[in-house]
Amino acid sequence: MPFVKIHITREGTEPGLDAATAEQKAALIHGVSKLLLDVLGKPMEATFVVIDEVETANWGWGGLPVDEFRAKQNAPHSE
Amino acid sequence: MPFVKIHITREGTEPGLDAATAEQKAALIHGVSKLLLDVLGKPMEATFVVIDEVETANWGWGGLPVDEFRAKQNAPHSE
Amino acid sequence: MPFVKIHITREGTEPGLDAATAEQKAALIHGVSKLLLDVLGKPMEATFVVIDEVETANWGWGGLPVDEFRAKQNAPHSE
Amino acid sequence: MPFVKIHITREGTEPGLDAATAEQKAALIHGVSKLLLDVLGKPMEATFVVIDEVETANWGWGGLPVDEFRAKQNAPHSE
Amino acid sequence: MPFVKIHITREGTEPGLDAATAEQKAALIHGVSKLLLDVLGKPMEATFVVIDEVETANWGWGGLPVDEFRAKQNAPHSE
Amino acid sequence: MPFVKIHITREGTEPGLDAATAEQKAALIHGVSKLLLDVLGKPMEATFVVIDEVETANWGWGGLPVDEFRAKQNAPHSE
Repeated sequence: MPFVKIHITREGTEPGLDAATAEQKAALIHGVSKLLLDVLGKPMEATFVVIDEVETANWGWGGLPVDEFRAKQNAPHSE
Repeated sequence: MPFVKIHITREGTEPGLDAATAEQKAALIHGVSKLLLDVLGKPMEATFVVIDEVETANWGWGGLPVDEFRAKQNAPHSE
Repeated sequence: MPFVKIHITREGTEPGLDAATAEQKAALIHGVSKLLLDVLGKPMEATFVVIDEVETANWGWGGLPVDEFRAKQNAPHSE
Repeated sequence: MPFVKIHITREGTEPGLDAATAEQKAALIHGVSKLLLDVLGKPMEATFVVIDEVETANWGWGGLPVDEFRAKQNAPHSE
Repeated sequence: MPFVKIHITREGTEPGLDAATAEQKAALIHGVSKLLLDVLGKPMEATFVVIDEVETANWGWGGLPVDEFRAKQNAPHSE
Repeated sequence: MPFVKIHITREGTEPGLDAATAEQKAALIHGVSKLLLDVLGKPMEATFVVIDEVETANWGWGGLPVDEFRAKQNAPHSE
């Protein structure tokens, strides 16, 4: 009966991908459901998982849209 | 002042539809708002409803993306 | 398979009550689940409902904690 | 370490815009993160903000999809 | 940067417990964070997890508060 | 009409406090509502804010309950 909502940015893990793949999403769904079975004994049939993919422009970190935050983190002499 | 968030899969209720229709969404919005008025006396003007339509690839059930879970449920001799 | 989260303030509907009663919560749960069955054909066994009761000090409306907002709304000559 | 989720309708603030602009989103992200720093001393690097843009057909107010609710509010002799 | 919210009922996994233990919560937190690292390469330092424990009276399943739903499921000759 | 949900840990900002104070919560509510007015022109009366205070045992960061994560971050020679 658990409900798990996973918020991630919509982006790929390697060049050429612009979002998590169907295989990656399936792995997240299986992994979370299995975890709730192992830790709390929840039957997998009783767990719902929702993956909420958020555009990077809509995700803030460090007071900035995440792409800007990352660029700043990686900049030489950044503080 | 209630806030209700309804998560559903983005899919139609009959062939030819690929999502809930505007009429169905309006019925959900009205029904939930009316329920809060009837049960708790909340004025309808004070209730917000958000419908979050989730792609089926992003919804997990039984440790699988929901389309796979349903196919397995319906398969003969499935376990 | 829908998941519905209902946010309400933790307060009673009449003197002597400081929260929604078990009967009121059951009515919300039944009403929402029935609505999803009627409008979208979702089996009631496939719908989860969570009621999130929020302390009034933690709920803001009109830029104020809700108790202050209501007091201001009801004040004579309020603006 | 705070996590803030801002739900807004997907619509523009002036003619010709159909959604919040990148600048407006950045201003929301910065403003919320700065607020948590000022009020609770949370380092900006430890705050995540997600902006959830909701189609107007999926947002209910007053028991109606929000566009219909607004039209009714603005109508002469509306009740 | 992922944010994961896990909704579970507040109840124990064995007699004498009335909620998930600190060890079980830690196992959920570690397991979800590790999963996001393994599947999407997200550094564990960049993942937040929130466990939302919901009173059973506030969780609905099958149109009933979950305790009633389970009692009905387990009843002989239930329909 | 925006709805903003702020998740923070339930802890005080100085010795002797074990949670955000009523004044701090009011400042968060006012600040967020004012921000939505300034950036998107949303009337303050149309914004709801909910503050969700999460026990530190229920908040994970870096794969650990947040108190353990912080202790590890502050430890000398930690890795």
